Amino acid sequence: MIRFESDYSEGAHQSILDLLLETNMEQTSGYGVDYHCENAREYIKGYCQDDSLDVHFLVGGTQANTTVIASILKPYQGVISANTGHINVHETGAIEATGHRVISLHSDDGKLTANQVREAYDSHWNDATHEHMVQPGMVYISHPTENGTIYSKKELEEISKVCQNLKLPLFMDGARMGYGLMADGNDLTLPEISRLCDVFYIGGTKVGALFGEAIVIRNENLKKDFRYNIKQRGGMLAKGRLLGIQFEALFRDGLYFEISKNAIKTAMMIRDAFREKGIDFLYDSPTNQQFPILTHQQIEKLSEDYSFQHWAGVDEERSAVRFCTSWTTDEANVRRLVKDINKL
Amino acid sequence: MIRFESDYSEGAHQSILDLLLETNMEQTSGYGVDYHCENAREYIKGYCQDDSLDVHFLVGGTQANTTVIASILKPYQGVISANTGHINVHETGAIEATGHRVISLHSDDGKLTANQVREAYDSHWNDATHEHMVQPGMVYISHPTENGTIYSKKELEEISKVCQNLKLPLFMDGARMGYGLMADGNDLTLPEISRLCDVFYIGGTKVGALFGEAIVIRNENLKKDFRYNIKQRGGMLAKGRLLGIQFEALFRDGLYFEISKNAIKTAMMIRDAFREKGIDFLYDSPTNQQFPILTHQQIEKLSEDYSFQHWAGVDEERSAVRFCTSWTTDEANVRRLVKDINKL
Amino acid sequence: MIRFESDYSEGAHQSILDLLLETNMEQTSGYGVDYHCENAREYIKGYCQDDSLDVHFLVGGTQANTTVIASILKPYQGVISANTGHINVHETGAIEATGHRVISLHSDDGKLTANQVREAYDSHWNDATHEHMVQPGMVYISHPTENGTIYSKKELEEISKVCQNLKLPLFMDGARMGYGLMADGNDLTLPEISRLCDVFYIGGTKVGALFGEAIVIRNENLKKDFRYNIKQRGGMLAKGRLLGIQFEALFRDGLYFEISKNAIKTAMMIRDAFREKGIDFLYDSPTNQQFPILTHQQIEKLSEDYSFQHWAGVDEERSAVRFCTSWTTDEANVRRLVKDINKL
Amino acid sequence: MIRFESDYSEGAHQSILDLLLETNMEQTSGYGVDYHCENAREYIKGYCQDDSLDVHFLVGGTQANTTVIASILKPYQGVISANTGHINVHETGAIEATGHRVISLHSDDGKLTANQVREAYDSHWNDATHEHMVQPGMVYISHPTENGTIYSKKELEEISKVCQNLKLPLFMDGARMGYGLMADGNDLTLPEISRLCDVFYIGGTKVGALFGEAIVIRNENLKKDFRYNIKQRGGMLAKGRLLGIQFEALFRDGLYFEISKNAIKTAMMIRDAFREKGIDFLYDSPTNQQFPILTHQQIEKLSEDYSFQHWAGVDEERSAVRFCTSWTTDEANVRRLVKDINKL
Repeated sequence: MIRFESDYSEGAHQSILDLLLETNMEQTSGYGVDYHCENAREYIKGYCQDDSLDVHFLVGGTQANTTVIASILKPYQGVISANTGHINVHETGAIEATGHRVISLHSDDGKLTANQVREAYDSHWNDATHEHMVQPGMVYISHPTENGTIYSKKELEEISKVCQNLKLPLFMDGARMGYGLMADGNDLTLPEISRLCDVFYIGGTKVGALFGEAIVIRNENLKKDFRYNIKQRGGMLAKGRLLGIQFEALFRDGLYFEISKNAIKTAMMIRDAFREKGIDFLYDSPTNQQFPILTHQQIEKLSEDYSFQHWAGVDEERSAVRFCTSWTTDEANVRRLVKDINKL
Repeated sequence: MIRFESDYSEGAHQSILDLLLETNMEQTSGYGVDYHCENAREYIKGYCQDDSLDVHFLVGGTQANTTVIASILKPYQGVISANTGHINVHETGAIEATGHRVISLHSDDGKLTANQVREAYDSHWNDATHEHMVQPGMVYISHPTENGTIYSKKELEEISKVCQNLKLPLFMDGARMGYGLMADGNDLTLPEISRLCDVFYIGGTKVGALFGEAIVIRNENLKKDFRYNIKQRGGMLAKGRLLGIQFEALFRDGLYFEISKNAIKTAMMIRDAFREKGIDFLYDSPTNQQFPILTHQQIEKLSEDYSFQHWAGVDEERSAVRFCTSWTTDEANVRRLVKDINKL
Repeated sequence: MIRFESDYSEGAHQSILDLLLETNMEQTSGYGVDYHCENAREYIKGYCQDDSLDVHFLVGGTQANTTVIASILKPYQGVISANTGHINVHETGAIEATGHRVISLHSDDGKLTANQVREAYDSHWNDATHEHMVQPGMVYISHPTENGTIYSKKELEEISKVCQNLKLPLFMDGARMGYGLMADGNDLTLPEISRLCDVFYIGGTKVGALFGEAIVIRNENLKKDFRYNIKQRGGMLAKGRLLGIQFEALFRDGLYFEISKNAIKTAMMIRDAFREKGIDFLYDSPTNQQFPILTHQQIEKLSEDYSFQHWAGVDEERSAVRFCTSWTTDEANVRRLVKDINKL
Repeated sequence: MIRFESDYSEGAHQSILDLLLETNMEQTSGYGVDYHCENAREYIKGYCQDDSLDVHFLVGGTQANTTVIASILKPYQGVISANTGHINVHETGAIEATGHRVISLHSDDGKLTANQVREAYDSHWNDATHEHMVQPGMVYISHPTENGTIYSKKELEEISKVCQNLKLPLFMDGARMGYGLMADGNDLTLPEISRLCDVFYIGGTKVGALFGEAIVIRNENLKKDFRYNIKQRGGMLAKGRLLGIQFEALFRDGLYFEISKNAIKTAMMIRDAFREKGIDFLYDSPTNQQFPILTHQQIEKLSEDYSFQHWAGVDEERSAVRFCTSWTTDEANVRRLVKDINKL
């Protein structure tokens, strides 16, 4: 069985393992204040071209989302999100567990628009009973989205501008950041993302690391006491250097960007194979997740040798499924899959 | 200006004031264990025809909803509600503030169906990633709904049966209970509601009292330590007898039911007046809230002498508005309104 | 049985009832924006000699404490309180339910000192692991305290100064405010309390009202969106005018202060009677709560005709008990009690 | 600088690294349902001699404590803990952030007694106002404690019996479990701990792993839906097998126990060295943490070459400090330290 079911099926890139081994018996302070974490912070600030940034390392995405969001909102505020957003679907109510509503807006492709944000804001404040309603307090977007789509520079600039005007901090979940940055047609860079968002994170778990997300905070108001929030939400790793080491390995020489390309290359091979068979897609994704709409017979056939995820029913005969590639997807396996797609 | 904007514009029924005055200098224990509360509990259990019920008195609806829901759900569970439900719209995220999501299901008229509940449940448990999603833990319905509609006996029996099968406690918000029980075409009674719901409340604030909601718990599992929950959520009134006295006055001789009729009678006068003018309604309400769809010109005209609530835009020229009547709506005022409707 | 067990055994002052009756059929807006609430706000601001204050009316003390504290603290902060403080003892963890620790400091008499606050603050910030500990975020004091003691002007000025220097908002729970202001030896006034605290409340429930606490906010930073907090915590009364009417009656002509005197007068009668018998007190209280230390035999004897509260065991033969008087305590009843004390 | 400041200064045992490397390119399912996790579960159940146990792997201690405690308590309940307990001191209010109070009882040495638990329980339920107070809902103990002390079998049996009688689930924080099991004089074993506690965890972070705590649940009532809790609290590691692999390496051949001995051996060398100098200890610890009371001059001297933690002031001239050893403490370093202690 060859797994395309997720982008976290394997361990870590060899460079990370090497550095972990090499530094294993070093004695360092705990909790993320060691020199590996410092190095990684400097590398990331360098790639973002902004020395004033605060960088924190957390183990996973749900933890990162919860910690950031709960640190920003006032008790009576909620976070605006696409209805497809990870915080709205796949975090077992972690945001609500910190006392806040996810204010979900409908999205066909996983993205929010600047207009949607403004309308949600206006609709709150124009309502005579707004004190009886959850006040929008910030905006959460994913890039790439859970549907594989990405924001264009223009789209992000528009959202960012609306957020700034409305004083709604903009938070980008970048669990798959590398795959967005390396996607065909992408016109966003880390410095731009850093400039346009108040806070975002660069995902390691799905892009070469064993685990780890690097939270980057630009907005001065959001920096204060952030480490208290990390500790309280259970995200302060005792051997914090393990996170530093991994991001050191990923960012000292641009490895993060390099290995992200493999996911795109292999995803495009899969996309093209389905396209050539005339098979439609649920979303138009230029990134590592592909959502072809297959007949149940096709699904059954491919399931013999490959694991992939059921995504959504489409009609009586067809369902959308998800194929994921990653930094380490084996091209030989993909070629085999392509052959089997051709045979469908 | 004659107010039809809400059903809580005036104070309380004279019988309540009389009893408050009469008992004012009595010395009693605090926190709802006095003999007035005991009397009121006995009256209510009598009307529900079930001696095994637990009855608690809280000051208001948001408090009642929050206290009941937070007492039932496990941390990772949410409460199923119509998207129109008060807890989903008009409680400033009070449920989320206790750590729980409101799982909102679309409703055109304010009601949930048994099928919707079952589908939401199945869709959760059939999802391979259900541990990553908020688990449905109970069901919240309003009766009458926020849109003035009511459940038929058959509808409530169906929902109740599904809830029992799925082990989802069923909670009915009865803030306007009296207006449901007295509505034309209603075929539900308190004993039936008590039998079909695990917990519900009988609203006093909108039906003759200064304030107060009587929570009735039938399900044995939900009774334990409920008073701790009341205290923690800020709902334990020091002079608890004030609640007891009010429900004593409302339920010793059936006053609650009697005065509810006035709201229905006057609402039907308003409904008929609009109908006769060929004016449509947003919802088909047999209770004290009426939602005619008026032109902006009609709205402007009526606003000269009457206050009512803007509800929702319908098209470029028309909006739905809400007229509320109550236990104390003055028939003379309604006749005047009817005349002015006729003139539109 | 004559009740001295609490200061909320009876209903309300006749002036309040009169005004409730007189205004009962008025139609007003809900939720505290009616003209009675406006009047009451103006009266209170007048007595505090500060037009810039925000005044909000809530139903009860636990609600007021929870709403204020949760509106001020960041998620990782706690509230400093005497270990005897109401929020630390008698609110079923309502503060913790909003996510915050009560940082309790030992107090022999119910009061905190400026030094204690500074030491708690320093001990936090001087600890190398402070990010792993709850950060002190504000200070809660009661005046009078739960033990009947009161702060002197000098003591409050000292605490206030420390709080200002350390940027810890100071919150005073004034559930029994009237009895502090009218106590023998008190040198604090409402304008001074208003100037020295960031936020405080004037208790109605225990001083002549059916229920109600008037929250007064001086600190500009704490004013924003406070009504959202009230609504979310279940404290926004639909018929908000009921609170306005009560505080109108209490503050239009100084009734609040006048009726508070009765509690002090009768408490002093009881205190003197015990003193004359050579009976000691657990706390030296100049207010309406008295804590004599009685033998079990004395307790048994007095319990025949009077209800009072067991407070704390003292030694094998003696326990401290609490006698409460109030705005409406009947002097004849107190004279009878005094006689029976004399006979002990 | 040789570090004795904590027991998490280095990386992981070589066997763990080897297994991580060896399995790095395996493709597995995420979230802890892979065969490595299954193997580790089986090994641990074997060592506990109980096939009915549920075993879950979490990344860190604060996360483990929060997830377990929040999964057990009802909203109005708190967790009994020694005042020295990690949850009461060093978790930035993580328990309170889930809505619950830590009910702290004074401890001189870090341990609770059965009597203390019973007294806290009785004092709650005997109080007439208990509904106004946080109800004790479970008991948290650490073994070894934060002060290095351990429970004897008799002590744990007594606490366990009281907890069972009072229906208070007993939860043991075993972040340093290995060092307790291998301590001189210890008479507790994993099967006994498993039998006497309702839930406990076996710490990996401080005993040979990169990170990871293995939660073991015996009480059937606490097992249901535990994975929802893990996910909600941010503790469900995407590449869950990383936890499985580590506990596999630690428990397939008893490595966990073997390497724990090194911490004890080296700690006893340090203890004996201080003892021979006539230096007292703050606690009598048979485990890997030693708390000698040193003069400020002695502290200064040793600080030249060794890092250790300031623990508590004792008198004007002396402070208690903490020296930690671990599974990987280098005996040569300890011999050097011993020499320098001799020279003091």
